[in-house]
Order: sequence, then C-alpha cells, then structure tokens
Amino acid sequence: MNFTNRLKKLREKLIELNLDAILISSNENRMYFSGFRGSAGYLWITNTDAILATDFRYTEQAKVEAPNYQIIRIISGSSWLKDAVTASNALRVGIEDHDLTLAGYNSIKAQLSDIAIKPKLVSTGFTCNQLRAIKDSQEIDQLIQAINFSDQAIEIVGAKLKPGITEREISWELEKTMRELGADGLSFNTIVASGPNAAKAHHKPSERKLEAGDGVVIDMGALYQGYCSDITRTFVIGKASPEFRKIFDIVLSAQETAEATAKAGMTGAEIDYLARQVIDAAGYENEFGHSLGHGIGIAVHELPGVGPNSINRIENGMVFSIEPGIYIEGWGGVRIEDLVLMENDCPRVLTKAHKRDLVEI
Amino acid sequence: MNFTNRLKKLREKLIELNLDAILISSNENRMYFSGFRGSAGYLWITNTDAILATDFRYTEQAKVEAPNYQIIRIISGSSWLKDAVTASNALRVGIEDHDLTLAGYNSIKAQLSDIAIKPKLVSTGFTCNQLRAIKDSQEIDQLIQAINFSDQAIEIVGAKLKPGITEREISWELEKTMRELGADGLSFNTIVASGPNAAKAHHKPSERKLEAGDGVVIDMGALYQGYCSDITRTFVIGKASPEFRKIFDIVLSAQETAEATAKAGMTGAEIDYLARQVIDAAGYENEFGHSLGHGIGIAVHELPGVGPNSINRIENGMVFSIEPGIYIEGWGGVRIEDLVLMENDCPRVLTKAHKRDLVEI
Repeated sequence: MNFTNRLKKLREKLIELNLDAILISSNENRMYFSGFRGSAGYLWITNTDAILATDFRYTEQAKVEAPNYQIIRIISGSSWLKDAVTASNALRVGIEDHDLTLAGYNSIKAQLSDIAIKPKLVSTGFTCNQLRAIKDSQEIDQLIQAINFSDQAIEIVGAKLKPGITEREISWELEKTMRELGADGLSFNTIVASGPNAAKAHHKPSERKLEAGDGVVIDMGALYQGYCSDITRTFVIGKASPEFRKIFDIVLSAQETAEATAKAGMTGAEIDYLARQVIDAAGYENEFGHSLGHGIGIAVHELPGVGPNSINRIENGMVFSIEPGIYIEGWGGVRIEDLVLMENDCPRVLTKAHKRDLVEI
Repeated sequence: MNFTNRLKKLREKLIELNLDAILISSNENRMYFSGFRGSAGYLWITNTDAILATDFRYTEQAKVEAPNYQIIRIISGSSWLKDAVTASNALRVGIEDHDLTLAGYNSIKAQLSDIAIKPKLVSTGFTCNQLRAIKDSQEIDQLIQAINFSDQAIEIVGAKLKPGITEREISWELEKTMRELGADGLSFNTIVASGPNAAKAHHKPSERKLEAGDGVVIDMGALYQGYCSDITRTFVIGKASPEFRKIFDIVLSAQETAEATAKAGMTGAEIDYLARQVIDAAGYENEFGHSLGHGIGIAVHELPGVGPNSINRIENGMVFSIEPGIYIEGWGGVRIEDLVLMENDCPRVLTKAHKRDLVEI
C-alpha cells in the first residue's frame, strides 16, 4: 500500500514537472519507489507504466521485492530503454543528474539516438529525494527498529567502557552487539573518539586506549531493512572534570532545548538556532562547527537539512537528528544526538538510550 | 616510493593522451594515486603539481595519508579548481566520466566558465583503472594479508558447519571471524548458499537451515588497508551424493587446469576457456553462466577481465580470480575460487585455504 502511495506522489510530480517519464538510477530512490534492494538497476516510471530493469543477478529478487513492477532483465546490447521510451511516446524524460555518471548519461543518449523523435533528457535534481523527506508509517516502523538496535548496543557497550580498551575495540564491540541483536549492518562507520581525539567530529577509531577521566564520544548507527539509525552519546571514564561537566551540561541543554521547542513549520535554520543560541550564550559560539542535524531514512544523511543555512521547512512526518556539540582542540569534545519525528507539530524523540545516567562510569 | 612510481606512470599517460592535467574523482583512483582513504575529494595532477582537495572532515587525515600532495580544504564557494586550472594554464583536462555524476560535471563546467581560455574536459574512461591492473610490491603484500584473513576464516567456520545452522548465522560467523583476526571489514556481502539455493551464483544468506547432504557454496572476502580478497569454497554437510562428487570434481578439475596452464600473454578469454573447456567436455556447457574470473585490488571487481569476451592480455603483476562453477536449478551448485598473481609468466596461487579436504564434514 505504501509503495502504491509513493508511486502516486511521484506521478503527481511528473505532471507538475511536465515529464512523460522518469528514469531512476540511484540506489536509494530505486528502493524507495519499488521495494527492490539490489545494488543495480533502473526504474522507468510513466503515468501508466512501472518497469524495473536489472541484470541477471537480481531478476529473481526483484520479482519478490517489487511486485508492483514489470521486471525486465538487462542483457548486453539490450534495447529495453529504447523500447520503453518508444512504447510510451515519451518526449520529456527525467533523469537523476546527481546520481547518473557522465558515462551513463552518454550511454543513455546513444541508446536513444536512433529514435525518430528523440526525447529530451531533463535533470530532476533532488526531486525524488524530496519526496522521501516525509516518512510514511512503514518507514517510521523501520526507523524505530533500526533505532532500537543502536540504543540497546550503546547502553550495553557503554556500561562496559573502562581504562585500557582501545577505540577500535569499542567500535567492534558496538558493531558486533548491533548485529547480534538483529541489525543488518552499520548505517555508517562508527566514530569512537576518546580524550583529545573527541575534538574531531569525524574521528576514525584508533588504537588509543581509554584513560581515566577521558571523555568518549560515540556516534553510530544501525541499518535495518534498508533504514538507518544514528545516535551519539558522550561518556566519561571515571570522574568527570568540572570543565567536562560544564560543557556536557551546555550541550545537553542545547540538545533538549531544541527537542522541546522545535515546531513544525520552522525552517531547518530556525531549529538549528534553537540549540545554537544556548551554546552561543554560554560562550562557545566558535566551538560548534557543524549543523545541528540532518534528515535520515534510507540514507543516513538526507533531506531535510537542519543547519544554519537550511531554508527548507520542517514538516510533520519528517525524521531528523538533533546533535549539537562543542569541540576544543587539544582537550576533546562533547556531542549528544537523538533522532526525532516531527508529529502533531512537535518533535517526538525516537531515540531512547539514556543521556545523562551514562556519563559517569 | 610506490606512490611516486604510480604518479610517474600516470604522468606518462597524461603525455600520451595529450592532457595538461587530470581531475580524479573516484574513491579507488584517489586512494591508488595518493594513499588518501577518505570518502570524498579530488586529485588534481599535472606534470608538476599534485593537489588533493577535500572537505573539513578529512584535511587532517589527508595530510598524514598523502604526504606527496598539497592538501587544499574545500569550502563552500571555493575556487580551488579554477585556481588550479589557471595556475597550470591547463587547456585539456582529463575527467573520470565513469565516476563523475552529470551534476558534478555541470558544476565543474560552471566553476570554470569565466576563465578566459576555458579548458576542454576530456573523458578518460578507464585509463586510471587500467594503471591499477598491474600490482606493485606493496599492493601484493596488502592483497596477501587480506587473503590470509578470508583463508583462515573459511577454514575455521567451515569446520563448524553442521545441520541446523542458518545461512545468515554462517555469514555472520565468517564476518566476525575475519574482523577478529584483524580485517577492516568485508570486501563484499558474503554469499552463503546451501542446498538448492546454491544454484543461484549471487544468493543472499537466508534463514534456511543446513540439512544433512547439503552442498554449501561460501563466497566471501576481507578488506584490509583498502585491499580486497575473494574466495569461494563448496562444502558438503555429511556424506556427498555421487552427483555432488561428480560435479565437484569437474569444477575442481576446471579450476586447477586453469591455474596450471594459464600463461602471461594470454587474453582473459583464453584463460577463461582453459577452465570452460573442462566443464564443456563434461557436458555442463550450459551450467557455467558467468565469467571465469576478474581482476581484484582496491575494488573487488576490477581490470583485467577474465571472461569469454575479455580481449585484454593477462600480464605479469596482475592479480585475478579463477572461479569456475556449475549451477543446476532445483539441485544446487558448486563453485571454487582462488586468487592468483601472474608472476614469471605463470599463476602463483595466493589463496591457501584447503579445497578438497573440506568437502566432507
């Protein structure tokens, strides 16, 4: 039912853009509109047709996963695209210019070169991605399941942190725990940043061993049924220094302020500012060098944007992260991140893992 | 030293193609020519310059990993590319059309639009990928380490196979074992195909439980320092049927024939035929529906091609798979795969895991 509805919205968009058809090539949009999770293939969608063309590796899987689509097996020298264009008399065909390679584009042009009336290929930019920003009920269920895996793993592994364990070991424990709980994989490479390493927002887990008094930023996510979770928690190994407590409390206050006061209809920039003003007011305006958050779903970073320059409006049904941080070169950092669903005009916090209780270990 | 040599060969190629510069965008080639393993960025290479431009997440990492390069941090609205083009008076600039998206290409054109003499952007196809086909000593060491992880894991987990374990459980055991041995990750999603599922060459591990008498095809690989391994073994749970023994022996014979008789200077198609003729002669010419092998390195599938239509010559220094198979719908399949290095005109088998001893369990 959800796929029927997604196709319906896409077809409305085709009419709005005056397109006779769209050729979808990106993994995420192919999955979103068809249910097919293979790593290669195209969707050809017109007002009446829905074709999924893929290679021999995936045709059986495609039949099972995308029952609303006519499945075509692409073989070398196949004219499926030309046939589809001809059959539908398509004159304006949308393409995903942010996904299609230049070589892929030239190949499509060549395949269509001997059609009597060649269709115009129209770049659709992020049109399909925009349709993914508002989640349907099935997607919210899938996101909640992915979130549960990372929530559980961060609590289980967080409780075991102690001096002597390396960042890499922690990262692997987290991954192993999520997988054994039932996650399909990671939604992105886990960040475990301890002590001074926590000053780097995108630190890669190293052989550094935890030391007493370290702050440890863990940023991770699970993948489940094609959907991503994303959580950050900051731990302390042993007793927190007064400076750590102070910075932790500012970040937590910024994070909870945004969760408590964001409203549907605000822009991403307005929501970013809810948290940023707390950090600015505490005197750390130069130490929060990234956006407050990002949309999440099939991709770990997707629309809507939630940063200082995000002019998009946050609507009911959107799921996004709220993750302020403070980073101080040579000292370390603190970041706290939840995923929220905008629902009945207010954020509903989907992430359930403890925030404050876990600080002291 | 290896990176200096790789750059030298690329610069010779620029001269050959009459290019003043090349803009490298693909992850694999960026890593190959610079050592940088971040997931975003460009290399700008001329006869004299070597620039690595990447965003704030990776500039520190880039300085460490790519000491031969000038590191530029890309910021919003940055004119680094225009500056580089202008500084080198580049009139013909190579681009990777198989990697660059259409939107990326249009963005580059726009960035260069107000240069007095606009450079011509020239698609270089797989030129850079071709340079990767012959491995240097450092790469061979890295490949051997990756291969050791998958060899050990398939022997450890293979010895534990028994009725009742699911394909998914086996897949996870294999991954866990490789990771705990020291692998950085998987080079591709593990295939565990048991009983009739083994008829599908690209089967995804399912909840099917192993049964006595099952054949089980396991195809997997480790990732280590950016390099991929790839191995396939076929096991039997308990006593093999006469049909299984027969088919296993044909596939093994085809595989070992190719390993024993391949010579440097043959085309990929000629090497493919060494194994294929054994399978054809046994009457299974329609049951081996894929290529004999593929090159491997930073990408799990890369040049050279080793299939019925591969006209490329296999040279000393190339590393590729030899993996014949027989697949029978409703019954199952057998595939056996090693990686070999063409060395002193003959294949040196890099994969060390047992083939035959493991059949009966």
